[in-house]
Amino acid sequence: MADTYVLVHGAWHTGELMEPVAAHLRTMGHTVHCPTLAGNRADDKRSEIGLSDAVDSLVDFVETRQLSQVRLMGHSYGGMVISMAAQRLGERLRRLIYANAFVPMHGESLNDLVPPHYRSLFDGIAAASGNAVMLPFPIWREAFINDADLALAEHTYGQLNPHPYRTFTDKAVLETELAALPLGKSYINCQQDTALPHSLPWHPRLSERLGLFRLIECAGSHELLFTDPQRLAQAIQEAGRD
Amino acid sequence: MADTYVLVHGAWHTGELMEPVAAHLRTMGHTVHCPTLAGNRADDKRSEIGLSDAVDSLVDFVETRQLSQVRLMGHSYGGMVISMAAQRLGERLRRLIYANAFVPMHGESLNDLVPPHYRSLFDGIAAASGNAVMLPFPIWREAFINDADLALAEHTYGQLNPHPYRTFTDKAVLETELAALPLGKSYINCQQDTALPHSLPWHPRLSERLGLFRLIECAGSHELLFTDPQRLAQAIQEAGRD
Amino acid sequence: MADTYVLVHGAWHTGELMEPVAAHLRTMGHTVHCPTLAGNRADDKRSEIGLSDAVDSLVDFVETRQLSQVRLMGHSYGGMVISMAAQRLGERLRRLIYANAFVPMHGESLNDLVPPHYRSLFDGIAAASGNAVMLPFPIWREAFINDADLALAEHTYGQLNPHPYRTFTDKAVLETELAALPLGKSYINCQQDTALPHSLPWHPRLSERLGLFRLIECAGSHELLFTDPQRLAQAIQEAGRD
Repeated sequence: MADTYVLVHGAWHTGELMEPVAAHLRTMGHTVHCPTLAGNRADDKRSEIGLSDAVDSLVDFVETRQLSQVRLMGHSYGGMVISMAAQRLGERLRRLIYANAFVPMHGESLNDLVPPHYRSLFDGIAAASGNAVMLPFPIWREAFINDADLALAEHTYGQLNPHPYRTFTDKAVLETELAALPLGKSYINCQQDTALPHSLPWHPRLSERLGLFRLIECAGSHELLFTDPQRLAQAIQEAGRD
Repeated sequence: MADTYVLVHGAWHTGELMEPVAAHLRTMGHTVHCPTLAGNRADDKRSEIGLSDAVDSLVDFVETRQLSQVRLMGHSYGGMVISMAAQRLGERLRRLIYANAFVPMHGESLNDLVPPHYRSLFDGIAAASGNAVMLPFPIWREAFINDADLALAEHTYGQLNPHPYRTFTDKAVLETELAALPLGKSYINCQQDTALPHSLPWHPRLSERLGLFRLIECAGSHELLFTDPQRLAQAIQEAGRD
Repeated sequence: MADTYVLVHGAWHTGELMEPVAAHLRTMGHTVHCPTLAGNRADDKRSEIGLSDAVDSLVDFVETRQLSQVRLMGHSYGGMVISMAAQRLGERLRRLIYANAFVPMHGESLNDLVPPHYRSLFDGIAAASGNAVMLPFPIWREAFINDADLALAEHTYGQLNPHPYRTFTDKAVLETELAALPLGKSYINCQQDTALPHSLPWHPRLSERLGLFRLIECAGSHELLFTDPQRLAQAIQEAGRD
């Protein structure tokens, strides 16, 4: 079965970094797109970009290409973006896939869903940098890409870009709650993902907000897209199929 | 070591559907029985059958065949049935094995152990159908057999049968609490089983009611008997051995 | 990368029992030491030994050999010992690794971190035996080494030694809380470890006391050192590398 996937990256990432995963999905016969959201493009002015700009850029991407029957995946922060985009793209979508991704309720920001020490940390960085925040390397290495060796952790860290912090503080606008959207929903949980602490976990805390959903799990960190893109592609296919 | 196993199916299932698992256990050298409980047989009057009828049918099965040193496994709803049967079969049993199965306390029904939305759903279906409830396909596909492809999900759904709802509302009668029964106890937890939501999970919520017990886990959904019967057979052997 | 590891055993164990794990780490190129703590040596007087004696013996071991850049791992009870030793060995250490190990706060004993039924059980055994407690075989077989067959469970049980109970009741002395120590920290969680019940789990309950830490998980029981030493060695290497 040849399906159409749109893979939406997380904070600090770009669509290009999702390409190894996409390549494995294409080998399985699927059509795959990896847009880079507004706010993470090389020439974006981080100081001016908020969550609605990122959402607009994704909606434009899908509509411009007239995609249909899309299996729309969001990774991490990408979950905020696909949740809002799904309100406008409904007829073009087949299924929503969250991959260790945020699932907001109406009126919640990403920062409302993370532990307080992250908010304090990024508040400070954003104040000093004019809305463009970087993730400190020790957090990246220990809590995000714990299944990599040091060389891969350093190489991939060098590929990240500063992220517009307003996308973390802007509140999600959801006319229809996600559980009520007439679409399939899946949640991929990489089991060693400690980007959120397991005392405040991705699953089931956020996944169960989807109502009836399909759970797919595999071993791996938050950055399985780097440490084992083939395994992530397999999980996406199991999450995305009818 | 050649052991004797009796594998008790869950709601909507039959013993026949457990045969592929049994075949793998037989290959390992074991003797395996897969009875179909009263209430799930082709000519059963669903309107008249309750939990004690299912229990009686299992006790009769074991006693008629004069089985001994039995490793008695219950899957899902089958946990209700083996818990009550163990009160009467004690001398014939070696170990109780729960496979993502309900572990009741005295006076609790299966419905007391599931989330409210299941009770509402099945109350409605039972009222309309005279005590015979079917599981809606979307729940089957997303929450019960999430690790299958659509073809296998549809094929296996076609093999299910309507289940007598009184077996979900009748209360368990347990003269001796399970933790105090002088038998080995094991709990098999398939890790992606979302037939119960992970916020109200099988393990450790229900498993720890067994007191000292052996935990065996593997990847898989509630319906691993269909999606990977060999893996389930291996888990049963690890749970059932001395 | 050739690193230096010191592997600290748990209660009832000795350094010798960790040697199969060490052998696999040496095959990967590392230098590995497996001391036996005071209290678990053949001629130790169990009646006289407390937690500080075990800590002293570990500090002496590392200092006498003038080890540096040590990746110091503690298994189970060994977590109490490495937590206190790290206060004194700081400059010699590179990283602390907890393997299903206790992570105390200042003033807490091991017994403060286990369920009440363990405390009652061992209080009784210690009172009868003069501070030397053995783990009852049924608990060993079902809750500690659930992934072994009976022969391995019995063989390894025969290799255990009585443990000085005061090491479970003495309180940890930590000048600096572990999260604030300027060292890397990792936590290895064997997923089927029910030596602590999963309703009162090793991870994230104890692991998150480390502050920023690296999570490594794999399948296995509390006694993976016996049931799959190669897999444990791999986990230690993933936990211990920079």
